[in-house]
Amino acid sequence: MKRALIVGGGPVDPRQLREELARKPELIIAADRGGHALLGVGRHPHLAVGDFDSLPEADRSALAAAGVRMLSFPAAKDETDLELALDSAVAEGAEDIRILGGLGRRIDHTLGNIGLLLRAAELGSAARLLDPDHELLLAGRALTLPARPGWALSLIPLTPKVCGVRTGGLAFPLCGEELYLARPRGIHNEFCAATATIEVAEGILLVVLFRESPVPG
Amino acid sequence: MKRALIVGGGPVDPRQLREELARKPELIIAADRGGHALLGVGRHPHLAVGDFDSLPEADRSALAAAGVRMLSFPAAKDETDLELALDSAVAEGAEDIRILGGLGRRIDHTLGNIGLLLRAAELGSAARLLDPDHELLLAGRALTLPARPGWALSLIPLTPKVCGVRTGGLAFPLCGEELYLARPRGIHNEFCAATATIEVAEGILLVVLFRESPVPG
Repeated sequence: MKRALIVGGGPVDPRQLREELARKPELIIAADRGGHALLGVGRHPHLAVGDFDSLPEADRSALAAAGVRMLSFPAAKDETDLELALDSAVAEGAEDIRILGGLGRRIDHTLGNIGLLLRAAELGSAARLLDPDHELLLAGRALTLPARPGWALSLIPLTPKVCGVRTGGLAFPLCGEELYLARPRGIHNEFCAATATIEVAEGILLVVLFRESPVPG
Repeated sequence: MKRALIVGGGPVDPRQLREELARKPELIIAADRGGHALLGVGRHPHLAVGDFDSLPEADRSALAAAGVRMLSFPAAKDETDLELALDSAVAEGAEDIRILGGLGRRIDHTLGNIGLLLRAAELGSAARLLDPDHELLLAGRALTLPARPGWALSLIPLTPKVCGVRTGGLAFPLCGEELYLARPRGIHNEFCAATATIEVAEGILLVVLFRESPVPG
Protein backbone atom coordinates (compact mmCIF):
# COMPACT_ATOMS: atom_id res chain seq x y z
CA MET A 1 0.00 0.00 0.00
CA LYS A 2 1.46 3.33 -1.04
CA ARG A 3 1.80 5.69 1.90
CA ALA A 4 1.88 9.48 1.67
CA LEU A 5 2.69 12.20 4.15
CA ILE A 6 1.11 15.61 3.53
CA VAL A 7 2.40 18.60 5.45
CA GLY A 8 -0.12 21.43 5.55
CA GLY A 9 0.22 25.08 6.43
CA GLY A 10 -1.12 24.88 10.00
CA PRO A 11 1.00 24.37 13.12
CA VAL A 12 3.46 21.48 12.70
CA ASP A 13 5.39 20.02 15.60
CA PRO A 14 8.97 19.35 14.39
CA ARG A 15 9.37 16.25 16.56
CA GLN A 16 6.17 14.74 15.22
CA LEU A 17 7.23 15.62 11.68
CA ARG A 18 10.56 13.81 12.20
CA GLU A 19 8.70 10.76 13.53
CA GLU A 20 6.41 10.73 10.49
CA LEU A 21 9.40 11.03 8.15
CA ALA A 22 11.05 8.12 9.99
CA ARG A 23 8.10 5.95 8.88
CA LYS A 24 9.53 6.41 5.36
CA PRO A 25 6.41 7.43 3.43
CA GLU A 26 6.85 6.76 -0.30
CA LEU A 27 5.42 10.19 -1.14
CA ILE A 28 5.91 13.47 0.74
CA ILE A 29 3.79 16.44 -0.32
CA ALA A 30 4.02 19.99 1.02
CA ALA A 31 0.84 22.07 0.88
CA ASP A 32 1.93 25.70 0.60
CA ARG A 33 3.54 26.73 3.91
CA GLY A 34 4.01 23.07 4.82
CA GLY A 35 7.22 23.31 2.77
CA HIS A 36 8.60 25.63 5.43
CA ALA A 37 8.12 22.99 8.14
CA LEU A 38 9.85 20.34 6.00
CA LEU A 39 12.82 22.60 5.23
CA GLY A 40 12.96 23.33 8.98
CA VAL A 41 13.81 19.68 9.66
CA GLY A 42 16.18 19.50 6.70
CA ARG A 43 13.94 17.63 4.27
CA HIS A 44 12.39 18.29 0.87
CA PRO A 45 8.99 17.09 -0.29
CA HIS A 46 8.65 15.13 -3.53
CA LEU A 47 5.97 17.59 -4.55
CA ALA A 48 4.95 21.09 -3.42
CA VAL A 49 1.35 22.13 -4.10
CA GLY A 50 -0.59 25.34 -3.58
CA ASP A 51 -0.86 29.00 -4.37
CA PHE A 52 2.30 29.59 -2.32
CA ASP A 53 0.90 32.82 -0.93
CA SER A 54 2.03 31.88 2.56
CA LEU A 55 5.37 30.21 1.73
CA PRO A 56 8.35 32.55 2.28
CA GLU A 57 10.14 33.35 -0.99
CA ALA A 58 13.43 31.93 0.35
CA ASP A 59 11.68 28.58 0.98
CA ARG A 60 10.20 28.60 -2.48
CA SER A 61 13.62 29.22 -4.00
CA ALA A 62 15.14 26.48 -1.84
CA LEU A 63 12.51 23.98 -3.03
CA ALA A 64 12.95 25.01 -6.67
CA ALA A 65 16.76 24.83 -6.39
CA ALA A 66 16.46 21.31 -4.96
CA GLY A 67 14.47 20.28 -8.04
CA VAL A 68 11.22 19.72 -6.12
CA ARG A 69 8.22 19.42 -8.43
CA MET A 70 6.06 22.53 -7.88
CA LEU A 71 2.34 22.45 -8.70
CA SER A 72 1.35 26.11 -8.62
CA PHE A 73 -2.27 27.33 -8.51
CA PRO A 74 -3.78 30.82 -8.60
CA ALA A 75 -4.66 32.25 -5.15
CA ALA A 76 -8.26 32.84 -6.29
CA LYS A 77 -8.98 29.11 -6.62
CA ASP A 78 -11.90 27.18 -5.19
CA GLU A 79 -9.84 24.47 -3.49
CA THR A 80 -7.82 24.82 -0.32
CA ASP A 81 -4.11 24.03 -0.60
CA LEU A 82 -4.58 20.93 1.50
CA GLU A 83 -7.35 19.70 -0.79
CA LEU A 84 -5.04 20.09 -3.81
CA ALA A 85 -2.35 18.19 -1.93
CA LEU A 86 -4.79 15.42 -1.08
CA ASP A 87 -5.94 15.15 -4.68
CA SER A 88 -2.31 14.96 -5.81
CA ALA A 89 -1.59 12.21 -3.29
CA VAL A 90 -4.56 10.18 -4.52
CA ALA A 91 -3.59 10.83 -8.16
CA GLU A 92 -0.14 9.42 -7.39
CA GLY A 93 -1.74 6.26 -6.02
CA ALA A 94 -1.47 6.90 -2.28
CA GLU A 95 -3.93 4.79 -0.31
CA ASP A 96 -2.73 5.61 3.21
CA ILE A 97 -2.40 9.35 3.73
CA ARG A 98 -1.25 11.03 6.95
CA ILE A 99 -1.71 14.78 7.23
CA LEU A 100 0.25 17.07 9.57
CA GLY A 101 -0.42 20.80 9.80
CA GLY A 102 -4.13 20.38 9.12
CA LEU A 103 -5.35 20.98 12.68
CA GLY A 104 -4.80 24.15 14.54
CA ARG A 105 -5.61 27.73 15.12
CA ARG A 106 -8.50 28.39 12.76
CA ILE A 107 -11.59 26.33 13.56
CA ASP A 108 -12.95 26.65 10.01
CA HIS A 109 -9.72 25.22 8.62
CA THR A 110 -9.87 22.30 11.03
CA LEU A 111 -13.50 21.62 10.05
CA GLY A 112 -12.76 21.94 6.34
CA ASN A 113 -9.86 19.53 6.71
CA ILE A 114 -12.06 17.04 8.55
CA GLY A 115 -14.23 17.21 5.44
CA LEU A 116 -11.16 16.20 3.43
CA LEU A 117 -11.07 12.89 5.30
CA LEU A 118 -14.41 12.25 3.70
CA ARG A 119 -13.08 13.33 0.31
CA ALA A 120 -10.21 10.87 0.65
CA ALA A 121 -12.67 8.08 1.48
CA GLU A 122 -14.81 8.98 -1.54
CA LEU A 123 -11.67 8.71 -3.69
CA GLY A 124 -10.90 5.27 -2.25
CA SER A 125 -8.04 6.24 0.08
CA ALA A 126 -7.78 6.45 3.85
CA ALA A 127 -6.53 9.66 5.40
CA ARG A 128 -5.93 10.84 8.92
CA LEU A 129 -5.21 14.25 10.45
CA LEU A 130 -2.59 14.39 13.18
CA ASP A 131 -1.18 16.80 15.70
CA PRO A 132 0.81 15.85 18.81
CA ASP A 133 -2.37 15.45 20.89
CA HIS A 134 -4.98 14.26 18.35
CA GLU A 135 -5.44 11.78 15.55
CA LEU A 136 -8.63 12.00 13.48
CA LEU A 137 -9.90 9.38 11.06
CA LEU A 138 -13.21 8.09 9.74
CA ALA A 139 -14.62 4.83 11.07
CA GLY A 140 -16.01 3.84 7.66
CA ARG A 141 -18.20 0.72 7.99
CA ALA A 142 -15.68 -1.11 10.18
CA LEU A 143 -12.50 0.00 11.87
CA THR A 144 -9.95 -1.83 13.99
CA LEU A 145 -7.67 0.24 16.19
CA PRO A 146 -4.80 -1.01 18.34
CA ALA A 147 -5.17 0.33 21.90
CA ARG A 148 -2.82 3.23 22.49
CA PRO A 149 -1.47 3.69 26.02
CA GLY A 150 -2.15 7.17 27.40
CA TRP A 151 -4.71 7.91 24.68
CA ALA A 152 -8.50 7.82 24.71
CA LEU A 153 -11.04 8.36 21.94
CA SER A 154 -14.30 10.08 21.08
CA LEU A 155 -16.83 9.12 18.42
CA ILE A 156 -18.36 12.10 16.63
CA PRO A 157 -21.18 11.87 14.06
CA LEU A 158 -20.49 13.83 10.86
CA THR A 159 -24.05 13.22 9.73
CA PRO A 160 -27.05 14.30 11.82
CA LYS A 161 -27.56 10.63 12.71
CA VAL A 162 -25.24 7.62 12.66
CA CYS A 163 -27.01 4.26 12.99
CA GLY A 164 -26.02 0.88 14.27
CA VAL A 165 -22.79 1.72 16.05
CA ARG A 166 -21.19 -1.37 17.61
CA THR A 167 -17.93 -1.27 19.48
CA GLY A 168 -15.58 -3.85 20.95
CA GLY A 169 -12.68 -3.28 23.32
CA LEU A 170 -14.02 0.02 24.64
CA ALA A 171 -14.85 0.83 28.27
CA PHE A 172 -18.24 2.31 27.34
CA PRO A 173 -19.52 -0.10 24.72
CA LEU A 174 -22.07 0.69 22.05
CA CYS A 175 -24.33 -2.18 20.98
CA GLY A 176 -26.03 -1.01 17.81
CA GLU A 177 -27.12 2.38 19.16
CA GLU A 178 -27.67 5.53 17.17
CA LEU A 179 -25.45 8.54 17.69
CA TYR A 180 -26.66 12.07 16.94
CA LEU A 181 -24.62 15.13 16.04
CA ALA A 182 -26.98 17.16 18.24
CA ARG A 183 -26.29 14.98 21.28
CA PRO A 184 -22.61 14.37 21.95
CA ARG A 185 -22.88 10.88 23.48
CA GLY A 186 -19.64 9.48 22.11
CA ILE A 187 -17.26 11.90 23.82
CA HIS A 188 -14.43 10.33 25.83
CA ASN A 189 -14.44 6.58 25.57
CA GLU A 190 -11.48 4.45 26.65
CA PHE A 191 -9.58 1.41 25.43
CA CYS A 192 -10.05 -1.66 27.63
CA ALA A 193 -8.47 -4.36 25.45
CA ALA A 194 -5.51 -4.72 23.10
CA THR A 195 -7.70 -3.85 20.13
CA ALA A 196 -10.80 -1.75 19.67
CA THR A 197 -13.34 -2.33 16.92
CA ILE A 198 -15.99 0.07 15.67
CA GLU A 199 -18.76 -0.89 13.28
CA VAL A 200 -21.21 1.53 11.68
CA ALA A 201 -24.35 0.51 9.78
CA GLU A 202 -25.25 3.93 8.37
CA GLY A 203 -23.87 7.46 8.45
CA ILE A 204 -20.43 8.96 8.80
CA LEU A 205 -18.59 8.59 12.09
CA LEU A 206 -15.42 10.45 12.95
CA VAL A 207 -12.99 8.92 15.42
CA VAL A 208 -10.98 11.42 17.44
CA LEU A 209 -8.08 9.83 19.29
CA PHE A 210 -6.69 12.19 21.91
CA ARG A 211 -3.83 12.13 24.37
CA GLU A 212 -5.28 11.98 27.87
CA SER A 213 -2.59 14.23 29.32
CA PRO A 214 -1.69 16.60 26.50
CA VAL A 215 1.96 17.45 25.98
CA PRO A 216 2.57 20.81 27.69
CA GLY A 217 2.49 23.48 24.98
CA MET B 1 -36.22 37.61 24.04
CA LYS B 2 -34.55 36.02 27.04
CA ARG B 3 -30.79 35.95 26.72
CA ALA B 4 -28.48 33.50 28.45
CA LEU B 5 -24.71 33.31 28.86
CA ILE B 6 -23.23 29.86 29.42
CA VAL B 7 -19.65 29.60 30.59
CA GLY B 8 -18.16 26.19 29.84
CA GLY B 9 -15.08 24.44 31.13
CA GLY B 10 -12.78 25.17 28.17
CA PRO B 11 -10.45 28.15 27.86
CA VAL B 12 -12.23 31.43 28.71
CA ASP B 13 -10.71 34.83 28.00
CA PRO B 14 -11.44 37.10 31.02
CA ARG B 15 -11.78 40.22 28.88
CA GLN B 16 -14.30 38.55 26.60
CA LEU B 17 -16.16 37.20 29.63
CA ARG B 18 -16.40 40.74 31.06
CA GLU B 19 -17.72 42.01 27.70
CA GLU B 20 -20.36 39.29 27.63
CA LEU B 21 -21.40 40.09 31.21
CA ALA B 22 -21.66 43.77 30.26
CA ARG B 23 -24.39 42.78 27.76
CA LYS B 24 -26.45 41.96 30.88
CA PRO B 25 -27.75 38.48 30.03
CA GLU B 26 -30.87 37.66 32.06
CA LEU B 27 -29.48 34.20 32.86
CA ILE B 28 -25.87 33.20 33.57
CA ILE B 29 -25.07 29.48 33.79
CA ALA B 30 -21.74 27.93 34.72
CA ALA B 31 -21.03 24.48 33.30
CA ASP B 32 -18.69 22.75 35.74
CA ARG B 33 -15.29 24.51 35.58
CA GLY B 34 -16.93 27.54 33.96
CA GLY B 35 -17.74 28.62 37.52
CA HIS B 36 -14.02 29.15 38.08
CA ALA B 37 -13.83 31.64 35.20
CA LEU B 38 -16.84 33.57 36.54
CA LEU B 39 -15.42 33.74 40.07
CA GLY B 40 -12.18 34.91 38.49
CA VAL B 41 -13.90 38.07 37.24
CA GLY B 42 -15.82 38.50 40.51
CA ARG B 43 -19.20 37.22 39.35
CA HIS B 44 -21.53 34.39 40.28
CA PRO B 45 -23.76 32.47 37.88
CA HIS B 46 -27.48 32.16 38.54
CA LEU B 47 -27.09 28.42 38.13
CA ALA B 48 -24.15 26.00 38.22
CA VAL B 49 -24.58 22.71 36.34
CA GLY B 50 -22.44 19.61 35.95
CA ASP B 51 -20.68 16.77 37.68
CA PHE B 52 -18.24 19.30 39.17
CA ASP B 53 -15.34 16.90 38.73
CA SER B 54 -13.19 19.68 37.32
CA LEU B 55 -14.32 22.59 39.53
CA PRO B 56 -11.88 23.28 42.40
CA GLU B 57 -13.46 22.56 45.81
CA ALA B 58 -12.86 26.17 46.93
CA ASP B 59 -14.86 27.43 43.94
CA ARG B 60 -17.65 25.01 44.68
CA SER B 61 -17.80 26.23 48.28
CA ALA B 62 -17.74 29.85 47.13
CA LEU B 63 -20.69 29.24 44.78
CA ALA B 64 -22.63 27.37 47.47
CA ALA B 65 -21.92 30.09 50.07
CA ALA B 66 -23.21 32.71 47.64
CA GLY B 67 -26.48 30.80 47.38
CA VAL B 68 -25.98 29.83 43.72
CA ARG B 69 -28.39 27.12 42.60
CA MET B 70 -26.33 23.97 42.00
CA LEU B 71 -27.61 21.24 39.66
CA SER B 72 -25.32 18.30 40.37
CA PHE B 73 -25.07 15.21 38.15
CA PRO B 74 -23.10 11.97 38.51
CA ALA B 75 -19.79 11.89 36.62
CA ALA B 76 -20.85 8.71 34.77
CA LYS B 77 -23.64 10.49 32.90
CA ASP B 78 -24.34 10.40 29.17
CA GLU B 79 -24.50 14.17 28.69
CA THR B 80 -21.59 16.57 28.66
CA ASP B 81 -21.68 19.37 31.24
CA LEU B 82 -22.23 21.91 28.49
CA GLU B 83 -25.20 19.95 27.16
CA LEU B 84 -26.78 19.96 30.63
CA ALA B 85 -26.18 23.71 30.84
CA LEU B 86 -27.76 24.23 27.43
CA ASP B 87 -30.79 22.14 28.38
CA SER B 88 -31.14 24.18 31.58
CA ALA B 89 -30.95 27.45 29.66
CA VAL B 90 -33.68 26.30 27.27
CA ALA B 91 -35.79 25.00 30.19
CA GLU B 92 -35.55 28.48 31.74
CA GLY B 93 -36.86 30.02 28.54
CA ALA B 94 -33.64 31.32 27.01
CA GLU B 95 -33.96 31.87 23.27
CA ASP B 96 -30.62 33.59 22.63
CA ILE B 97 -27.74 31.63 24.15
CA ARG B 98 -24.08 32.65 23.98
CA ILE B 99 -21.51 30.08 25.03
CA LEU B 100 -17.96 30.86 26.19
CA GLY B 101 -15.47 28.14 27.11
CA GLY B 102 -16.88 25.71 24.53
CA LEU B 103 -14.06 26.00 22.00
CA GLY B 104 -10.52 25.11 22.73
CA ARG B 105 -7.91 22.54 23.30
CA ARG B 106 -9.71 19.27 22.69
CA ILE B 107 -10.96 18.88 19.11
CA ASP B 108 -13.61 16.33 20.13
CA HIS B 109 -15.04 18.77 22.68
CA THR B 110 -15.17 21.53 20.07
CA LEU B 111 -16.95 19.19 17.64
CA GLY B 112 -19.37 17.96 20.28
CA ASN B 113 -20.17 21.54 21.24
CA ILE B 114 -20.80 22.44 17.59
CA GLY B 115 -23.35 19.63 17.72
CA LEU B 116 -24.99 21.44 20.65
CA LEU B 117 -25.75 24.39 18.35
CA LEU B 118 -27.92 21.96 16.45
CA ARG B 119 -29.49 20.73 19.68
CA ALA B 120 -30.37 24.32 20.63
CA ALA B 121 -31.98 24.83 17.22
CA GLU B 122 -33.98 21.61 17.61
CA LEU B 123 -35.22 22.94 20.97
CA GLY B 124 -36.27 26.23 19.37
CA SER B 125 -33.43 28.44 20.64
CA ALA B 126 -30.46 30.03 18.90
CA ALA B 127 -27.00 29.43 20.33
CA ARG B 128 -23.53 30.53 19.39
CA LEU B 129 -20.06 29.47 20.50
CA LEU B 130 -17.51 32.21 21.05
CA ASP B 131 -13.83 32.65 21.75
CA PRO B 132 -11.83 35.82 21.19
CA ASP B 133 -11.08 34.86 17.56
CA HIS B 134 -14.16 32.89 16.49
CA GLU B 135 -17.92 33.00 16.62
CA LEU B 136 -19.85 29.93 15.44
CA LEU B 137 -23.57 29.77 14.71
CA LEU B 138 -25.93 27.89 12.42
CA ALA B 139 -27.31 29.59 9.33
CA GLY B 140 -30.71 27.94 9.70
CA ARG B 141 -32.85 28.61 6.60
CA ALA B 142 -32.02 32.33 6.56
CA LEU B 143 -29.50 34.39 8.47
CA THR B 144 -28.70 38.10 8.48
CA LEU B 145 -25.35 39.18 9.86
CA PRO B 146 -24.08 42.72 10.33
CA ALA B 147 -20.64 43.09 8.71
CA ARG B 148 -17.91 43.01 11.33
CA PRO B 149 -14.78 45.06 10.63
CA GLY B 150 -11.61 42.96 10.86
CA TRP B 151 -13.56 39.72 10.71
CA ALA B 152 -14.25 37.30 7.85
CA LEU B 153 -16.36 34.16 7.66
CA SER B 154 -16.43 30.58 6.41
CA LEU B 155 -19.45 28.45 5.56
CA ILE B 156 -19.09 24.82 6.61
CA PRO B 157 -21.61 22.07 5.80
CA LEU B 158 -22.60 19.95 8.80
CA THR B 159 -24.44 17.55 6.53
CA PRO B 160 -22.68 15.76 3.65
CA LYS B 161 -24.49 18.14 1.28
CA VAL B 162 -26.10 21.55 1.77
CA CYS B 163 -28.33 22.68 -1.10
CA GLY B 164 -29.44 26.02 -2.44
CA VAL B 165 -27.02 28.31 -0.65
CA ARG B 166 -27.61 31.97 -1.57
CA THR B 167 -25.60 34.80 -0.10
CA GLY B 168 -25.81 38.59 -0.21
CA GLY B 169 -23.20 41.08 0.92
CA LEU B 170 -20.30 38.65 0.60
CA ALA B 171 -17.22 39.09 -1.62
CA PHE B 172 -17.49 35.55 -3.03
CA PRO B 173 -21.24 35.17 -3.57
CA LEU B 174 -23.11 31.90 -3.72
CA CYS B 175 -26.17 31.81 -6.00
CA GLY B 176 -28.04 28.65 -5.11
CA GLU B 177 -25.02 26.35 -5.23
CA GLU B 178 -24.53 23.16 -3.28
CA LEU B 179 -21.82 22.91 -0.67
CA TYR B 180 -20.28 19.57 0.29
CA LEU B 181 -18.61 18.58 3.54
CA ALA B 182 -16.06 16.65 1.47
CA ARG B 183 -15.11 19.74 -0.55
CA PRO B 184 -14.37 22.80 1.58
CA ARG B 185 -15.56 25.48 -0.88
CA GLY B 186 -16.94 27.92 1.68
CA ILE B 187 -13.70 28.62 3.52
CA HIS B 188 -12.76 32.28 3.90
CA ASN B 189 -15.40 34.58 2.49
CA GLU B 190 -15.49 38.30 3.22
CA PHE B 191 -18.06 40.97 4.02
CA CYS B 192 -18.52 43.52 1.22
CA ALA B 193 -21.62 45.38 2.44
CA ALA B 194 -23.07 46.58 5.74
CA THR B 195 -25.08 43.38 6.05
CA ALA B 196 -24.59 39.82 4.88
CA THR B 197 -27.43 37.40 4.21
CA ILE B 198 -27.23 33.63 3.90
CA GLU B 199 -30.10 31.44 2.73
CA VAL B 200 -30.12 27.66 2.76
CA ALA B 201 -32.72 25.48 1.02
CA GLU B 202 -31.68 22.12 2.51
CA GLY B 203 -29.10 20.82 4.95
CA ILE B 204 -27.28 22.24 7.94
CA LEU B 205 -24.79 25.03 7.40
CA LEU B 206 -22.39 26.27 10.06
CA VAL B 207 -21.15 29.85 9.90
CA VAL B 208 -17.70 30.40 11.36
CA LEU B 209 -16.88 34.07 11.86
CA PHE B 210 -13.17 34.56 12.48
CA ARG B 211 -10.92 37.46 13.27
CA GLU B 212 -8.66 38.05 10.26
CA SER B 213 -5.67 38.97 12.41
CA PRO B 214 -6.07 36.90 15.56
CA VAL B 215 -5.26 38.53 18.87
CA PRO B 216 -1.70 37.46 19.79
CA GLY B 217 -1.96 34.56 22.25
